[in-house]
Amino acid sequence: MKLRIGINGYGTIGKRVADAVLKQKDMELIGVTKTKPNFECRIAMENGIDIYASSSDRIKLFEEAGIKVKGSLEDLLKQVDVIIDCTPGGVGASYKPIYEKYGIKAIFQGGEKHDVAGFSFNSYSNYREALGRNFIRVVSCNTTGLCRLLYVMDNAFGIKKARVVLIRRGADPHEDSKGPINSIVTDPVTIPSHHGPDVNKVLKHINITTIAFAVPETLMHVHVLNLELNNTASESEIIKALSNYSRIKILSAKDGIASTSAIIEYARDLGRKRYDIHELIVWKESIKSFGNEVYLSQAVHQEAIVVPENIDAIRAITKTIEDPEISIKTTDESLGIGRW
Amino acid sequence: MKLRIGINGYGTIGKRVADAVLKQKDMELIGVTKTKPNFECRIAMENGIDIYASSSDRIKLFEEAGIKVKGSLEDLLKQVDVIIDCTPGGVGASYKPIYEKYGIKAIFQGGEKHDVAGFSFNSYSNYREALGRNFIRVVSCNTTGLCRLLYVMDNAFGIKKARVVLIRRGADPHEDSKGPINSIVTDPVTIPSHHGPDVNKVLKHINITTIAFAVPETLMHVHVLNLELNNTASESEIIKALSNYSRIKILSAKDGIASTSAIIEYARDLGRKRYDIHELIVWKESIKSFGNEVYLSQAVHQEAIVVPENIDAIRAITKTIEDPEISIKTTDESLGIGRW
Repeated sequence: MKLRIGINGYGTIGKRVADAVLKQKDMELIGVTKTKPNFECRIAMENGIDIYASSSDRIKLFEEAGIKVKGSLEDLLKQVDVIIDCTPGGVGASYKPIYEKYGIKAIFQGGEKHDVAGFSFNSYSNYREALGRNFIRVVSCNTTGLCRLLYVMDNAFGIKKARVVLIRRGADPHEDSKGPINSIVTDPVTIPSHHGPDVNKVLKHINITTIAFAVPETLMHVHVLNLELNNTASESEIIKALSNYSRIKILSAKDGIASTSAIIEYARDLGRKRYDIHELIVWKESIKSFGNEVYLSQAVHQEAIVVPENIDAIRAITKTIEDPEISIKTTDESLGIGRW
Repeated sequence: MKLRIGINGYGTIGKRVADAVLKQKDMELIGVTKTKPNFECRIAMENGIDIYASSSDRIKLFEEAGIKVKGSLEDLLKQVDVIIDCTPGGVGASYKPIYEKYGIKAIFQGGEKHDVAGFSFNSYSNYREALGRNFIRVVSCNTTGLCRLLYVMDNAFGIKKARVVLIRRGADPHEDSKGPINSIVTDPVTIPSHHGPDVNKVLKHINITTIAFAVPETLMHVHVLNLELNNTASESEIIKALSNYSRIKILSAKDGIASTSAIIEYARDLGRKRYDIHELIVWKESIKSFGNEVYLSQAVHQEAIVVPENIDAIRAITKTIEDPEISIKTTDESLGIGRW
């Protein structure tokens, strides 16, 4: 029997998770919710996805716009095993009582506080600890990227200290009212940014400091990592360690990929839908070893990197697959992850 | 008798150095050169500055445009004690034989290689070593910012290791054909960027690694510094140490200055010509101490920070003032540096 999945919110993350759920043989997408009858409803309809209004008093908004809805969020919740909360950051917490009322397992996104779910998730880092829980929070895009990399490097070489500078995209491509348009903005000015403590929700023992800035760019975040390791690691050993993980992709500046826009151009040429990149991208030439001190730079597609983690989270929370490697492999094959 | 100064190139740096020379009581600006009769010639004329064509065969270009020139570069060189080379990066080297032919002391900019002058200059760091030389290279904006900060911190606490990430402005405000417009560009992808080795041309003993990215912004560069110190330094001790130096200005995010655009807005409101900021700006709240490991973030106005260093370089190269403190104080008072 397939897992019956609902998605609360069909925006930046929700529509991508919906596409990914549709590709899973062990899952059935029952429906998605929308607050407003905008163009994304037309996309859902084209994809054959049932739409539910976020609340019953909003159903008429959709009817007036000629969008057929199957009911409200509560109608959706009655039919599903797992709800994936893809509402805007901070909004998910307000839905938790409704999910609890219907006894539904829920997966929240990184925009919620850790305490909303009580458990923060990353597939590589702590899949087994998530098994059978009622609530899981998939950490945000930046934290997902950091957790993937730090987990692998810690496993391979032991991390003594991690120092990270994040150069964040100012806004997503569709956010036409956000900035900055000509500024480098401290985000925040104090140290650490929230990303380091958030990594520690997943990888509790990593000594990490993060500092973040927002810049006028929409495509990807960039992270600059300085790692002090317990053991020495040569550049080729690092490349070998990272290459074992399909969700970390090493690209070379020598191939003309020395910027976020070049990475995205590559994804577009590959024909990836919405140019989504689920993999963490590490620039090969940025990997620099000074024995047990290492530098590297990586890029994170903020809209897409958490999608495979959401799919794995469904299997972990329902305990339908207990081995993380099997879930990760299943997800990766369904989404074409690692095929470059 | 006043020092007779010529400036080869009246562009981004040249026009600012010209303004600064005009404010020095011990200097006389004999003239500036231009390659093309563009709007900057009108600015020079309005400021009462004599214009020379960069070569004699270009004089007619200016005459055709109705710009009166007093002769060519060689005519200018015959009249000056010091020429400040403000030609584009890499071009200055080609003029060196002409300066040598006329036996003129020359000050190059950071766009030239160290070997062109054989000595790289920063007022705080190595003024005395510059005394009486024939050629000096004033290091670039980023290196000037780093040298100021590292010199002060090294003097106060001893630097064991410096790790720096540079978030560079993509282009200057007037560079309307340059990018990036929506990308974060590795600059370069390999480690270190040229800035660390360039700092070592001035501060030879500092163990420093630099990594740089270019972003779609025109106002200022941002540097994120991680410093391992020989001695512990509290945040207040760091603030106190930096406050002793007029060319380092600490601004507070609490005053609404948490981005490069906010810093520039402040300079505009102060009525600074061209909104130029000669000071290195350090964000107060970014200063974070973990005993003998320290983080801080700083901003560099790429068009203006090297101007006071060029003025000091004139006095050092001519040995007219041997005490760096006297030259620095004279320059600072003439330019209003530190008056915030």
